[in-house]
Amino acid sequence: MSPKITTELLKQLRQVMKNPKYVQEPVQAYIVPSGDAHQSEYIAPCDCRRAFISGFDGSAGTAIVTEQHAAMWTDGRYFLQAAQQMDNNWTLMKMGLKDTPTQEDWLVSVLPEGSKVGVDPFIIPADQWKRMSKVLRSAGHDLVPVKENLINTIWTDCPQRPCKPLITLDLSYTGVSWRDKIVALRSKMAERKVMWFVVTALDEVAWLFNLRGSDVEYNPVFFAYAVIGMNTIRLFIDGDRMMDPPVREHLQLDSTLEPEFKIQVMPYGSILAELQAVGAGLSPKEKVWLSDKASYALTEAIPKAYRYLTPYTPICIAKAVKNAAETEGMRRAHIKDAVALCELFNWLEKEVPKGTVTEIIAADKAEEFRSQQKDFVELSFATISSTGPNGAIIHYKPVPETNRTLSVNEIYLLDSGAQYKDGTTDVTRTMHFGTPSAYEKECFTYVLKGHIAVSAAIFPNGTKGHLLDSFARSALWDCGLDYLHGTGHGVGSFLNVHEGPCGISYKTFADEPLEAGMIVSDEPGYYEDGSFGIRIENVVLVIPAETKYNFKNRGSLTFEPLTLVPIQTKMIDVNLLTEKECNWVNEYHQKCREVVGAELERQGRHEALRWLLRETEPLARVQ
Amino acid sequence: MSPKITTELLKQLRQVMKNPKYVQEPVQAYIVPSGDAHQSEYIAPCDCRRAFISGFDGSAGTAIVTEQHAAMWTDGRYFLQAAQQMDNNWTLMKMGLKDTPTQEDWLVSVLPEGSKVGVDPFIIPADQWKRMSKVLRSAGHDLVPVKENLINTIWTDCPQRPCKPLITLDLSYTGVSWRDKIVALRSKMAERKVMWFVVTALDEVAWLFNLRGSDVEYNPVFFAYAVIGMNTIRLFIDGDRMMDPPVREHLQLDSTLEPEFKIQVMPYGSILAELQAVGAGLSPKEKVWLSDKASYALTEAIPKAYRYLTPYTPICIAKAVKNAAETEGMRRAHIKDAVALCELFNWLEKEVPKGTVTEIIAADKAEEFRSQQKDFVELSFATISSTGPNGAIIHYKPVPETNRTLSVNEIYLLDSGAQYKDGTTDVTRTMHFGTPSAYEKECFTYVLKGHIAVSAAIFPNGTKGHLLDSFARSALWDCGLDYLHGTGHGVGSFLNVHEGPCGISYKTFADEPLEAGMIVSDEPGYYEDGSFGIRIENVVLVIPAETKYNFKNRGSLTFEPLTLVPIQTKMIDVNLLTEKECNWVNEYHQKCREVVGAELERQGRHEALRWLLRETEPLARVQ
Repeated sequence: MSPKITTELLKQLRQVMKNPKYVQEPVQAYIVPSGDAHQSEYIAPCDCRRAFISGFDGSAGTAIVTEQHAAMWTDGRYFLQAAQQMDNNWTLMKMGLKDTPTQEDWLVSVLPEGSKVGVDPFIIPADQWKRMSKVLRSAGHDLVPVKENLINTIWTDCPQRPCKPLITLDLSYTGVSWRDKIVALRSKMAERKVMWFVVTALDEVAWLFNLRGSDVEYNPVFFAYAVIGMNTIRLFIDGDRMMDPPVREHLQLDSTLEPEFKIQVMPYGSILAELQAVGAGLSPKEKVWLSDKASYALTEAIPKAYRYLTPYTPICIAKAVKNAAETEGMRRAHIKDAVALCELFNWLEKEVPKGTVTEIIAADKAEEFRSQQKDFVELSFATISSTGPNGAIIHYKPVPETNRTLSVNEIYLLDSGAQYKDGTTDVTRTMHFGTPSAYEKECFTYVLKGHIAVSAAIFPNGTKGHLLDSFARSALWDCGLDYLHGTGHGVGSFLNVHEGPCGISYKTFADEPLEAGMIVSDEPGYYEDGSFGIRIENVVLVIPAETKYNFKNRGSLTFEPLTLVPIQTKMIDVNLLTEKECNWVNEYHQKCREVVGAELERQGRHEALRWLLRETEPLARVQ
Repeated sequence: MSPKITTELLKQLRQVMKNPKYVQEPVQAYIVPSGDAHQSEYIAPCDCRRAFISGFDGSAGTAIVTEQHAAMWTDGRYFLQAAQQMDNNWTLMKMGLKDTPTQEDWLVSVLPEGSKVGVDPFIIPADQWKRMSKVLRSAGHDLVPVKENLINTIWTDCPQRPCKPLITLDLSYTGVSWRDKIVALRSKMAERKVMWFVVTALDEVAWLFNLRGSDVEYNPVFFAYAVIGMNTIRLFIDGDRMMDPPVREHLQLDSTLEPEFKIQVMPYGSILAELQAVGAGLSPKEKVWLSDKASYALTEAIPKAYRYLTPYTPICIAKAVKNAAETEGMRRAHIKDAVALCELFNWLEKEVPKGTVTEIIAADKAEEFRSQQKDFVELSFATISSTGPNGAIIHYKPVPETNRTLSVNEIYLLDSGAQYKDGTTDVTRTMHFGTPSAYEKECFTYVLKGHIAVSAAIFPNGTKGHLLDSFARSALWDCGLDYLHGTGHGVGSFLNVHEGPCGISYKTFADEPLEAGMIVSDEPGYYEDGSFGIRIENVVLVIPAETKYNFKNRGSLTFEPLTLVPIQTKMIDVNLLTEKECNWVNEYHQKCREVVGAELERQGRHEALRWLLRETEPLARVQ
């Protein structure tokens, strides 16, 4: 990887930072955040402004350019990559290290007195604006919104914002019509006494209208906003995709409807003006509900006294609890996904010893098998196909420069998933195609114990996911091992593979309580730098549990694995498992046999079926 | 318990709320918080203003009186007690219930437009002021500081503020001299670039100067503030106790000292004026460090731009990590405490069957045995001596109206502790003096499993205590049982029995990471309303652990029990324990035998020794 040469670009940026055509007053610093105007985790190429200006294209990072300096803040996952992709114009600010200043503190230390710090108000979330602005102001500087994005002014070959056709989802997939979702949303709005709700997150717009898109890779979403009033629905979206007859029919755009369900379609770019008009027309006590992560621009459109901000929107919370149709869809998707992986692992078992399979080939083969399944749409994230030392890089993605050949001497870790029209998958399996060492088996077995501890945990209704995180670590901790990532994240239903408001992490303190119908991942791991990586990940559904005393009718919850892919028994040191854990593995494998076995049979995939049967032989504990 | 009649008092309070002698402008509401000017958990009688005005004397509660209403906010521990102690003038606001308004929201709903809400600025913490003030202002009201405490103006027989003699602690108890503590504090101040540090918490003043007092029951502290500059030390304290020769010598008040260690003694009441003088004399970049829980009055004395506020002060953090002298003192204190409890339980075993021992008699007897031990000072909190259904009241304290007789048919729960000059204890044991039911044993055993899961937990250096909380609940959760309190709190060294900044609780998100030398309690429980309560509590020391792989030199931690009192084996259903848990109990009891047995022997307490030996017979698991 050679760094991007940014000398000329930075010179141009510094010029526009002083150009009265773009800024009211010159700005002495310009912030280039990672995100798009919707605070998306995955962004479209046209929004990769930070990568454009710096060369660093990891998923998280903020660039700040002053007249003298250019600095990049990113976290531990990306220290190495950022250092390789950026040239000497850039200083890497390693977040999480003790001596690394915050962006605000750094700005205060380098700026001349009374400086202006510019940022695109559509890209910076309101909560972050507030924090930065406060620190800068107390040091005599000003954070100022710069209407025109300054990167766009110098990015001559900036790609167009995507505007791809939409997919409509009928009731068999969604379980609830968009009209009923609007009704439920309005009842939540009435409860909180708000008159308007602004939908800014792309997956929330998609979920609300039972539409999907492909404007952003891996996430089946489309660029849009919505503003829901008690009697009006406004959808801000561009392109002739709204001319598509199925879409018009789905949204009943040409039907005679009660006025409160009539959708007004407006241009994507008109959201700010429309919201300002809403803001200007509010009478006292008429509140407007926004996520506290909505952009500063949209938040400011509503006068402060009228804003109602929450960390999680009612759509975010409703979306997390899957209904019967969604749950059944997720089950189907996971069975198809398991069929594809049985095919893959059977193929790898035969091919790896020949020394011809690279990480990229394996990833492509996984995609090929998945794409053969019904309703396959695309992958749900970039496949992590990693062998040997590459497995220890938690967010690894094979590229030609790093591409390693799978062998019978190294552990192989595959973290992959897909979007099917009926559900989203995300599964990690760690395999050895030769003979694992005793140490590798030991580590794998601790990770498995952690996986089972979470998956089999029983807990009272109302428990937050972060309270389960340590269960996944206990077996590792006992031996002085740990992993430096969370244990699980929410998973969407044919939507984003990472979604709020629940999760299982030592870092997640603002998570909402788990409830039946929520879907999260369970993915403890262990990483030995320079040697190997282990992770065992299932997507699991929160379900009611049967307990002896049932928490005085408060109710009990536990998890049911949706992922049904064998866990390689060759990697397990059976003597480290308790009887209960051993039974868990055997019951899990029995279910894989029954459910996935039947589907392999139905699809006539007999060789993969034989592989499945071999891989799901019961474990026998030596007493 | 009959309620306090408050009609006349409320009338008087409402008069002074309008009396220009006390308020600049009439206030339409007056807030009476629980605390004192130091945000102490335990307060002196002269600070029990909320109890005076309402009758409700629980440890937590805030009263608000308006012209029409009188309302009391308290939490679940006190719903019953508050309802019993308050007359019909008062509305009980049950915190934690969904429909209970916050104090701010309630004020907004009942106040006439443009109201003034008064509060004593010395009693309300700055962070709470900020929150309330913001909400009130946005609704058109004003939170205003009322200099003279309005309760004091009507409390004619208000007790005097205590001003009792001080105890000096030499190096054999503290391990570090006050001079060295000042040096360490100043180095923390230099690190953060602050020029002044204001000590507002009573236990922090006591710890810093290696002094103890008895101004507040159970907490060996004294009323004082301190302001530490880089070259000055000011101690704000009243009374002729500073004339006491040992105190003068301890503080070297009459010695020729380097000026930076010369303590200026000033009147307690002069803190505000002195701090205002400090605030007025600051040059740019001279910051003053305060706890964000310091009173509004003291916080306001420093202009906003010069304040440096943190949730935990450097003293709070330093105090939590006990040095070798303190740890040894804590060990000694716990051995003496165990001797007293062996005596008590031996005595109870003989006396309970006679039907003559009440909860109060048992509590008194526990105090009697403790007071026979060397360096005993006082109890460390009000003894929770509870039998049968009283055991299910988590913060129960026996009073004549509730006093129950111990019997061979009910579970007895004793949660008690003492202050010794060398350490603070806090221990809970749950006993049955007859034959426990299978269900009682089952519940007890789950609680024990939770206690062991925490006590034996191994975790990486830097882990926060709240990540261990679920370990204590897992066995209960598996059967659909739980308890509604945290699992552990920090414990002072001959100081407050509850101290920050660490703890083990699902509620504690702002806790500091555990480190070797910290001391916390481990106290899971189970409570069956109307029937019984179970809790097993040890005080445990955080120590380095030996692990196979040692977290890549990050280091491992675990706990060592300081409390060495037998856990009643009669209550254990051995078949519910794993082999590892069984061994833990047997090793723990072996240590009780060796360490406490030797001390009982030394003190010639042969009968109690025989009891200890009987109670620590190894468990045998039926395979």
